[in-house]
Amino acid sequence: MGPRWKGKGAEAKGLAEPMSEIVSALQTCLTTSECKGSISGSKVLFEADTEQSELLNRACFGRVIRASQKDEHWYELTLQEAFYLCYMLKCLKIEGDDGVVKSYEELWQFMISKFEMFPEFFKAYSHMRMNNWVVKSGSQYGVDYVAYRHHPALVHSEYAILVLSGRKDCGRLKLWSDMYGTVRLCGGVAKTLLVLHVLGNNNDTSSALCLSNYDIETRTISRWIPEQTREKKE
Amino acid sequence: MGPRWKGKGAEAKGLAEPMSEIVSALQTCLTTSECKGSISGSKVLFEADTEQSELLNRACFGRVIRASQKDEHWYELTLQEAFYLCYMLKCLKIEGDDGVVKSYEELWQFMISKFEMFPEFFKAYSHMRMNNWVVKSGSQYGVDYVAYRHHPALVHSEYAILVLSGRKDCGRLKLWSDMYGTVRLCGGVAKTLLVLHVLGNNNDTSSALCLSNYDIETRTISRWIPEQTREKKE
Repeated sequence: MGPRWKGKGAEAKGLAEPMSEIVSALQTCLTTSECKGSISGSKVLFEADTEQSELLNRACFGRVIRASQKDEHWYELTLQEAFYLCYMLKCLKIEGDDGVVKSYEELWQFMISKFEMFPEFFKAYSHMRMNNWVVKSGSQYGVDYVAYRHHPALVHSEYAILVLSGRKDCGRLKLWSDMYGTVRLCGGVAKTLLVLHVLGNNNDTSSALCLSNYDIETRTISRWIPEQTREKKE
Repeated sequence: MGPRWKGKGAEAKGLAEPMSEIVSALQTCLTTSECKGSISGSKVLFEADTEQSELLNRACFGRVIRASQKDEHWYELTLQEAFYLCYMLKCLKIEGDDGVVKSYEELWQFMISKFEMFPEFFKAYSHMRMNNWVVKSGSQYGVDYVAYRHHPALVHSEYAILVLSGRKDCGRLKLWSDMYGTVRLCGGVAKTLLVLHVLGNNNDTSSALCLSNYDIETRTISRWIPEQTREKKE
């Protein structure tokens, strides 16, 4: 299955503006303005001006939760999105309830305290993002993420992603019935099931440095249709 | 979601020949001819004459594996189908490799030796069959069974069934992502997810008598579409 662009001109528009360039522009813009987000529960909130807001939207980070005054918008970022902007792109600082900017070390501990599997899920998220895929929640389809070749306004998501960990059993795809059902669902909504198996050398997740020790094994799982591989009848 | 009949006249045909009457006719026919099936691996094989074959097909038990001589057909029955015909309808005897007819007690032990969860899965199968549903494997959709209102030639299956046990964890629907994916899949193929939770008073499965001690909790799980329940806009 290839990409399914949304309507006429969507493919040309997507190719004319590569996602890598949009994310670079966002990185430059946020770095220049020394942006700060603040933790709120299991999300990070960020007040964006018009330019920042446009770039966040085009690069598909976060979602607008309300418009504030003077053309500013409040954005809500997931933990993965916030940590990606902060730790990988170095263009966002994040402060706690006390208004003090958190160090990478403190942030890492906070992320794990909110979500035990954060190291593996973040590794998977950043692996896809670094390869210029747009990554969003896949909960609507019972998977961890969905991945888009470009902005979801231009193209349907191509991959349904499940993250498996070598450190801790995530519980998915242990049963054939779960595997069959997941593959069938993905086929039914025209996505390919992509399993990202995140494997570490050891189980030490005490610092974000562990991210560089992870290997990712990627596998797609598809239905095999015997008729397609059979010799054609005369 | 109601039944989806296959084409014109299918509903009238289905209503004119209730499944209960077809199964009764099969029961009478097999009882009269003192039928015997024989165990082969995890299946039961049965050689049917023309009348038996027609009724097996109309009642949707087993599948033809090959035609034998003189209009006879070899049928392959699943363990559930064979035990249902034998123990519930008392119209089939089953013999082992030695050619000796097995007692209910021996058969029960054999079924459990082939499939540990047989008590719960058979209870679920017979519960649906007793209520005149046609029950077939749901492995194509990653579930345990699918249930049809009438013969699959006349109507699409309405329910996708998962069997959960109170005795032993079947592993399904433990994770929200599995639940979401399964419900979404069922909706996508126009079936309702039916969860049959089979609960026993104790864990004694040493004899088929335990079947009468099981309670079945039945639940359907569906997507909730908020717009449908909202007051209409003027």
